Amino acid sequence: MKAKVHVTLKSGVLDPQGKAIQHTLSSLGFGGVNDVRQGKFIELDLEETNEDAARAALTDMCEKLLANTVIENYDIELIA
Amino acid sequence: MKAKVHVTLKSGVLDPQGKAIQHTLSSLGFGGVNDVRQGKFIELDLEETNEDAARAALTDMCEKLLANTVIENYDIELIA
Repeated sequence: MKAKVHVTLKSGVLDPQGKAIQHTLSSLGFGGVNDVRQGKFIELDLEETNEDAARAALTDMCEKLLANTVIENYDIELIA
Repeated sequence: MKAKVHVTLKSGVLDPQGKAIQHTLSSLGFGGVNDVRQGKFIELDLEETNEDAARAALTDMCEKLLANTVIENYDIELIA
C-alpha cells in the first residue's frame, strides 16, 4: 500500500523558506504572489495491506519522526 | 487563487533524505517500509484569478525556480 504524507508548518509559525521563495519569485519578475509556504511531501511504500492498520502505523510514524507536532501539521493519504 | 505545487525527485534519482527516513523508521521499529521518497510541497497564494493565466505563471515559476527539472518533476494543482 502506498501513502502520501504532507507535513506543513502550522499557521502562525514563521516560514523563512517560504518567504525566501516569495522574495526570489518577486526578484524574477513574478508579481502578485501574496504568500508562499513550503512543506514536506513524503511518499511511502508499505507492505501493510490493511487500510486501518496502515493509517495507524503512519500516524505513529508522523508523531514520532516525520512531523514536529509542536509546529507542524501532518496529513495522511492512502492509495490502495 | 491558491495553488499547491509538488516537487518530487524523478524516479531513478537517488534520494538520500528518503533513505535516511526509511532507515530511521526501521530503527524505531517500523518494519515493512519498502521505500520512502521525500519531496517538496509548496503552497502559493496568487492574486491572479484566471485559471489558465495562473497555471501558465506557475509552470514558469517551476521551470525557473521551484524545481530543478534535470532531476525533479513538478505537479501543479489549482484551488479556485
